Formats: sequence, structure tokens, C-alpha cells
Amino acid sequence: MKTIGFIGLGIMGNAMATNLQKAGYQLVVYNRTKEKASQLVAQGAELVDSPAMVAEKVNTLFTMLSTPEAVEETAWGPNGFAEILKKDALWVDCSTVNPSFSRHMSFMAKSHNLRFMDAPVAGSKAPAENAELIFLVGGSQVDLDEVRPMLEVMGKKILHMGDNGKGAALKMVFNYCLGMSMVAFSEAISLGKSLGLDEKRIVDIISGSPVMAPNVALKKDKILNSEYSPEFPLKWLHKDMHLATLTGYQQNVPLPAGNVVKELYQMAKAGGHGNDDFSAIFGFMQKLSGQ
Amino acid sequence: MKTIGFIGLGIMGNAMATNLQKAGYQLVVYNRTKEKASQLVAQGAELVDSPAMVAEKVNTLFTMLSTPEAVEETAWGPNGFAEILKKDALWVDCSTVNPSFSRHMSFMAKSHNLRFMDAPVAGSKAPAENAELIFLVGGSQVDLDEVRPMLEVMGKKILHMGDNGKGAALKMVFNYCLGMSMVAFSEAISLGKSLGLDEKRIVDIISGSPVMAPNVALKKDKILNSEYSPEFPLKWLHKDMHLATLTGYQQNVPLPAGNVVKELYQMAKAGGHGNDDFSAIFGFMQKLSGQ
Amino acid sequence: MKTIGFIGLGIMGNAMATNLQKAGYQLVVYNRTKEKASQLVAQGAELVDSPAMVAEKVNTLFTMLSTPEAVEETAWGPNGFAEILKKDALWVDCSTVNPSFSRHMSFMAKSHNLRFMDAPVAGSKAPAENAELIFLVGGSQVDLDEVRPMLEVMGKKILHMGDNGKGAALKMVFNYCLGMSMVAFSEAISLGKSLGLDEKRIVDIISGSPVMAPNVALKKDKILNSEYSPEFPLKWLHKDMHLATLTGYQQNVPLPAGNVVKELYQMAKAGGHGNDDFSAIFGFMQKLSGQ
Amino acid sequence: MKTIGFIGLGIMGNAMATNLQKAGYQLVVYNRTKEKASQLVAQGAELVDSPAMVAEKVNTLFTMLSTPEAVEETAWGPNGFAEILKKDALWVDCSTVNPSFSRHMSFMAKSHNLRFMDAPVAGSKAPAENAELIFLVGGSQVDLDEVRPMLEVMGKKILHMGDNGKGAALKMVFNYCLGMSMVAFSEAISLGKSLGLDEKRIVDIISGSPVMAPNVALKKDKILNSEYSPEFPLKWLHKDMHLATLTGYQQNVPLPAGNVVKELYQMAKAGGHGNDDFSAIFGFMQKLSGQ
Repeated sequence: MKTIGFIGLGIMGNAMATNLQKAGYQLVVYNRTKEKASQLVAQGAELVDSPAMVAEKVNTLFTMLSTPEAVEETAWGPNGFAEILKKDALWVDCSTVNPSFSRHMSFMAKSHNLRFMDAPVAGSKAPAENAELIFLVGGSQVDLDEVRPMLEVMGKKILHMGDNGKGAALKMVFNYCLGMSMVAFSEAISLGKSLGLDEKRIVDIISGSPVMAPNVALKKDKILNSEYSPEFPLKWLHKDMHLATLTGYQQNVPLPAGNVVKELYQMAKAGGHGNDDFSAIFGFMQKLSGQ
Repeated sequence: MKTIGFIGLGIMGNAMATNLQKAGYQLVVYNRTKEKASQLVAQGAELVDSPAMVAEKVNTLFTMLSTPEAVEETAWGPNGFAEILKKDALWVDCSTVNPSFSRHMSFMAKSHNLRFMDAPVAGSKAPAENAELIFLVGGSQVDLDEVRPMLEVMGKKILHMGDNGKGAALKMVFNYCLGMSMVAFSEAISLGKSLGLDEKRIVDIISGSPVMAPNVALKKDKILNSEYSPEFPLKWLHKDMHLATLTGYQQNVPLPAGNVVKELYQMAKAGGHGNDDFSAIFGFMQKLSGQ
Repeated sequence: MKTIGFIGLGIMGNAMATNLQKAGYQLVVYNRTKEKASQLVAQGAELVDSPAMVAEKVNTLFTMLSTPEAVEETAWGPNGFAEILKKDALWVDCSTVNPSFSRHMSFMAKSHNLRFMDAPVAGSKAPAENAELIFLVGGSQVDLDEVRPMLEVMGKKILHMGDNGKGAALKMVFNYCLGMSMVAFSEAISLGKSLGLDEKRIVDIISGSPVMAPNVALKKDKILNSEYSPEFPLKWLHKDMHLATLTGYQQNVPLPAGNVVKELYQMAKAGGHGNDDFSAIFGFMQKLSGQ
Repeated sequence: MKTIGFIGLGIMGNAMATNLQKAGYQLVVYNRTKEKASQLVAQGAELVDSPAMVAEKVNTLFTMLSTPEAVEETAWGPNGFAEILKKDALWVDCSTVNPSFSRHMSFMAKSHNLRFMDAPVAGSKAPAENAELIFLVGGSQVDLDEVRPMLEVMGKKILHMGDNGKGAALKMVFNYCLGMSMVAFSEAISLGKSLGLDEKRIVDIISGSPVMAPNVALKKDKILNSEYSPEFPLKWLHKDMHLATLTGYQQNVPLPAGNVVKELYQMAKAGGHGNDDFSAIFGFMQKLSGQ
């Protein structure tokens, strides 16, 4: 079966690559911290020393990195893959980046005779492990058809939103909503607790109610136990809120509520919660209330 | 069957009183605008000229009014019901008010030898008509047991949250979440549209996704058709956000995001949308973006 | 010379009453905490046990209290002065309250055949001691002419803004600007410090520059020494921001920036800085930045 | 006398170059819109066709451009000056840019054997014309001594803040304060007017008071006449607020109030006021209030 490159083996990337491997794909992988590849290697993946060395061996390359800066460095920096990939190879970037960056990557790729697809995912650790991600795709129909079998072993749904950048755009909208919902929940519960309502009871009632995003309920145990081990680190959600408001600036769209919410994550990050799960904003805001 | 008083026959009150009537209760009703009682009267309700005249005829009185000021005036103002109700009568206030006001009403009622229950509802027009409201109750177990049969013909669920004021507290938390969600949605969709995503498609995707409060989906048609006839008028949601932030002040709880969201509804209200459905904040914010 | 009543002997009230006394007026004073009157008593003031007892002895009464609730209680509560004052007596309220409250006090006073004037002051401790306050007056020209000699021994300037409530209105506008300026300063300096600029130098440059309210410079020493003993306690400035935003709600005026600034003072207050000088918001926000 | 290059002849650049010319310096100038150079040319300046052509003729080059993007393009883009300037030439960038960009320019310049100084100015049109600017300088003492005579014919004061980027840092702090002050003023006056205070009178009182930045008073006539011809266009102040909040993100500093204020300028810009003077935020916010 086909050999695929996979760069970026964090929580998400590891789970996604594992599903590709289980489906029979042969993987060539790279990660800055090599230890994270150990399980994949044990199952037969080839671990190489640089993004460029991945590029030498594949015609289809997935990246799953944490920031636009990391994507740029990995693609175009020293020992980057972009100048090594063969003509007409397909680079599928699953990283959560801003749409203007994604369009820039597309432009750069095309000017180097590469094909590009933005395919960030909705879903965090568990859906990644269970192949239940939703792919939000920007790119051509032909390219999508080519990688569809691979996406289908990692996810349960593919939303093709249009040309390059539109997958990244929808992902940004998703994470924007997620960031807003968790802050709305945090403030609402602080308010309720201050009025004598039982914390566990209102966390249950509100998180299961139609006025709250269902995804918030996934964090109930973390919240009630004040146990914020990272599934989706706060610093990355903060970065996403930052990129969304940056995009608002570029597109001339006012986002007053989102900008304030972004600053609340900023406070939590400056307060030392950047590596906690993003639901730690709940605990941080309770503390701000003296609760 | 028992005779019940019902004061406040707006969109919600009318639907609730109608369900009591259908279940066989005899109603004595009052509304400032008498025309709104016509259907109830046609079905056998007695319409009287003042809150006080309702009070003369019943031992159980429901109120469903739009603001704390309206509740206070109806209860304690000229021709108010509170000084006329018989000793030990039970006043059930279903209005959405702030908890400190509700506790104040409770205090006043008790000092006049009346029983009081705060029982605001979750749910808007359709759930009210279909007897699918959720009652959020603050009051004694005994009083709740007494009116349970009545609540059950108007709603599908009763959440007893504790003593007086705690029903009002939970209702405030609910509407806070609702107000936040609709603004989060409005900003997110503005952002997505500005990036070239198709409006109808992302309204569908986001409103049905786990990062958005399900209740937002109820407003999809209004949003896509820019048709904002009121189910829950924006001015009342704005009032609820105001009362929530006022409560934040009283309880020493910072609500930075909620205060900004409140001001967005304030802008929409100052811009002439107070009597539109609260989902008109969507259209207002699109306009702010020049979309 | 004339006998004058003075109720409320905090930092400001004490200094103001002292100036009246120095000018030869005979004072009858009341304060909840009696010790605060000791200096005035030593100089000849008569200290009595209740607001009502002040009212028995004077036809001109000044109040300088910290909140609308305190004014209401002192005037109309048990042993309040309002029902005791002689017909046509003049009550001059120097407290910082919201305009709608001030108009309500005016209405109440007139319905009890009293005259009312709102005369809050611009200026804090030092201007109060040096008789350099600015009186912001709402009331009739005749009443103002009557008390002008007294105001002139306490202040250096009188701004007659119109009828009752308009003095309170201008005071609210002043404190709004003050609250906003101190937060703007705090954020600006945090930003500058994070970029390696020397704290003392930029505090000097910015506080003395035409882009910053001159009053901020009065707090330079406190800020540079992190010494926040109260001249104007943070909790009262927070109250003023709260009353201003409440007024925004009543008057249908959006105040998005002010509402966020209010919440920053709220955070500082919930964080234990309510009794510090309001410039403690500077230290609080540095801490939020991890500086 | 020495020949100096000057690129960027907008409102500010034109006034600054004119003062250099008056002092006897021979100028070689470039501007994208050539017409703006006509007065300088009439007085003896040489107008050339590209930044590169300026670079061929001078060893000291001033730039006064509107955005980081414009600076980057002019220096390093096609026909840019940076690769043409002689070794050891001194580039003085007076543009208002973010500090990280300024440090990046410094890095790029040094790696091309050029000297760099960031020297943005405090002051707008009138101070520029009257040689009353304040230069905020980041760079070496030696370089500053070299250009001091030139800066002194354009300004009245030089603040040397440290090495490259620190002049830009202070400028950002200045404009941040300016942007905050104008919004604070706008909200405060809206509030006052809604309470019946006379607009002209409170604009006078507040803008001249110690709770408001003195620079706001410079805009009094514009505000009272609703005449917003640009001295400092709103879109550039909005850009500065954007760069400041972007810097907050980079430096891990929460700026909750500034982010909301930024969004208010964003609304005004999306509403068509980008090319008006930034004080048009006043008129925009009055309109938001329905005033």
C-alpha cells in the first residue's frame, strides 16, 4: 500500500498517524521530539531526521503542527520539506492555522509546483483516536478525491468548503465558538454559584441544556475535579482566538466579544495556565471571582 | 376545579394560561392591555379590571410579567394584588427577574403573611404552547407540591433549586448563556462569511455542531431570512443581561465577557431593534461589519 | 455665624467640614463611626447621635456619603434626617451618586417640603483639605446663591449645570473619565515594560504627556512604590463605574469600553483591593501580566 | 550642506521634509503618489522614480510610511532602497510600526551592513509643521548624535529610549493612550448628553479637565462641528491599536480594555470612517447611542 509522510506527532498527530498505519499505510514520520514517534516506529513506521528526509520518500505528505510559525519553519526552513518534495506531490496541512496563512502556503506550494490542501479537523483527542474526526477541507475536488480514502480512516465526515483556505476558515470559526462557549459557561457558573446554587448541580444542568454548546459537557469532570491535564492546551486555543481576531482585522470585521474572551485566555496564560487544558479557564475565572 | 389567578398575558403568559384553562382550571385574569385576554375570555376566563380584583377571588396567583418594575407595580402599586390577597395565599412569580429582587419579593410577601414561590421558565413561545416549559423553582417543598399539578400542565420538567430566589438565579444563568451564545454565533458567522464561506452552509453547519448552543438553531430561519418578528424580544434579553451583570456587581463576581455582550444588545436596542426578536443581534452585527 | 449640619465624615467629609469650621460656621455633625469626628469636636463642633438629631438643629444640611444606599438610609431610614428637617430647609448632597438617584432624592425632598441640591465635588483628599474642590451643582439659582459662601470656603470653583440631578450627572462623567484613564495607563505601561522600557522613565513620560489625563500623575509615587494607601478607595471608583453603566442602561447609551473597565476594577476588588487606593488597579494589572 | 533621502510624503512626511529643506538640507525624495512632492520639488528637492533611486544618492535616509507592510515593501521589495544603500548608510525610520517589526528591520539592516534607527514621532500635523515634534528614538548613541541636528530642525525634543525597537515601543504606548482617551471621552460625553447636560459645555469642561488627556481638547472643534477632515486618519489609529494588541499577544500581556477600544475603531472603520480623522469615533459612538 501507498507510503505516506506524516510530520507532527503531538496528541492529535499521533492518533491520526496511528489510524493511517492501522489501515495499512506505510508511514515515514518526523517529529521534533523523536520519542513521541516510538509507538508508531514499533508498529513499522520509518522515523527520519528532518522534514526534508520525509519529502524524499513520499508523494503525499500530512502535517499536523501547532502554529503557523511551526508550519512555515517545517516547510520552508532549513531542512524543510517543501523544496525537496517531488513535482506535483500533494501536501495536506491538517494544522489549525489562519486562513490567510493557509492561502499563503497554497500560493507558495503552487509556485513550487506542489499541490496543497488545507484539511484541519474538528474534534480533539478521543475523536482522533476513534477515527471520528471531521475534516474541514479547502482545495480542489480532484485532490480531495485522491486523499479521501486516507481521510476516511482518520475521520467520520468530510466537509469540502471550497478552494484553499476555506477549510482553515471553517476551523477557525469552530474554535472561535468553542472558546466563546467555555468562557460563557465559566461566567455563568460563577454567577450561579455566587447566588448559592450547588456547583455540581448547575454544571450538570447547564452543560446539558440547549443554551450551552454540547462540547462543554465533555469537560465536566475536569471542571468538577479541578483537574486540567491537557487534551487541548489553553495556549493553543488562545492562539486560535488570536488568529481569529487577527483575521477580523484583516477582513474588516468587528469582533468585540471575541476580543475580550481572547484576553481572558491571555490572562489565564499569563497566570501560568498555558499548558493546562483550555477548560482551565473555568478554574481561573472562579479564582478571579474569589470562589 | 380550583380557581387560579393569572396576571400578565404576553406571548408566554397567554400560552401558559391557556394550558391551565385546557386542563380545567377556572381562571381570573388581568392584563394591562385587555385585548390580549380575548381568547382566554372566549374560553371562559374571567377578565377583571385590576390586579387587586384578581386577588379578591383566588388563593393561588401566577404572575408572568416582563420586568422587576412591572412585578413590583402590579403587586404593591395602586390597585396591586399583594395587600388584597388572603392570608397564606400562594403567589407564584414566573417572571424573569433578578434573584435579589425575587428574594425581596419573598421578604415582602412573607411580611404580609403570603407565601411566595419564584418559578421562572426555560423555553419560549413554542414550548409554552406545547406545555414543554421547564420550571426553575425557588421555594418550599410544601408549596411546590401544592402547585405541582398546575406546573405540570404548563411544562414538562420541574427543577427545584432551593429556597426563594434560587429559581430566579438559575433562570438568570440560562438567559445569560443564551445571550452569550447568540452573540458568539453572530461574530463567528460574520467572520466566516468575510472569508468567503457560504452563509447558509455555515449557519447550518455551526448551528448544528457541538460547539454551539442547540437553541441557536431554533433561530436559523429568522437569521437566513432576516425576518426578526419577536418570539423573545431583544429588549427583554438585554434586560436579562443587565440584571445578570447587576447581580455580578452585587455578588462581587467579574463578568467581563457578559458585560461586553450586554453592550452589543444595548447597541442593537439603541439602533431600533428592541422590539425585534433577540436573534436580530445577528443582523445588527452583520450590518456593523458592513455585510 | 450660621449653624450648619454635616453628615458623613470620611476622608472627604472631614476635610470639607473642617474648612467650614475654619471659616467660622458652627457645625452639628454626625458620623456612623464617631471617632472620625474627634478633631472637629475638639475645634468646637457638636457631635450628635443620629441624623435626625442633626436635623433638629439646622436649616442647612450637607451630606457626604459613600453610596446611594447610605444616602437613602441616612435620609429616610430609622432616625433619618429627612422627616425631621424643618419645612423649607436646604439639603445639599455632596455624595457621588447616580443622577436618577439624585433626582429621586430631589423628588422625595420636595414632596416633604424640603429644598434639595446635588453638589458633588471634583477633587480628592488634597484639594478637599486645601479648599480647592470644584462643586458640580444641580439645583435652583436661588438655592445656589444661598449656599455659595459655604461652597466657596470648601472649593475654588462652582459649576452650575442645571436643575437637580445635573450636578450628579457631571460628577459621574468625571469619575468615568478618571476610571478609564487609570486603566488605560495601567495597560499602556504594562505593554511598555514588557518591551523593555524602564518603568520609572515611562511612568514619568506618559503621565506627564498630553495623551494621558493629568490626574494620573498624582498617583505616580503610589504606583512606583506599590504603596496603595487609600485616598480614593478602589471600591468607590468601582461603584461609580457601576452607577455610570447602570445609567447607560437607563438612558439607552452603549458604553462598551466602560463596562470592560468596570469589570477590571471588579476583578481587583474581588482580588482583595477594594479598600486600597483606586490606583491599585495598576499593580493588579501588572500582576495579571505576570510582571 | 548634506544631502538627505526622504521617502513617504503624506501629511506628516511632507511637513517634516519641508522643515529639513528650510534648514538647508538638500533632499532626494520619493513618494508613491508623486503629486504630493510638488511643493518640495518647487523648493529644490529632487524627486526620483523609486526608493532604490533615492538610495543611490544618499547616506542618510528617512522613511515616514503608514504601515509595517509599506515599510517592508519600500525597503526590501522590488526597487527597494535597502539593497542599494551604501555600506554603513543610516536608515532612520520615523514610521509608526510595532516594536517587533522595528527590531526585525534592524536585524535585516545590520545583516546588510546598514545602520538603523527607529525614530517615530509624537505629534500630528500642526506640531510637524511647526517643528514641535517629539522624537522617540531607539538606536545607538553615536547614530543619534549624527542625526541630532536633523531631528532638531523637525522637532523640539528627543527621547532616547534605548536600543533598536525602543523608540517604536514608546510610540506604540503613546498612541495606545491616545486611542483609549478618545473613546473614554466619547462614551463619557454620550452619557452626559443623555442626562440633559449641554454638549458644548461638557465638551469644554471635560476636555479641559484633569481627568482627560489634554490632546483630546485639540479635537474640540471637529467634535462640536461634526467635521472630521483627517489630521490623523482613523484607520491608522486603528492600525496602531491593532499592532499594540498584537504586541500584547507576543509579549504575553493582557490588554482587555484596549482590545475592546480597538474593536470600536474597527466598527467605525467598517462603518466607513477609516479615512476620517480618528476623532470621528466620537460622532460614530454618538450615532450608536441614537444621539
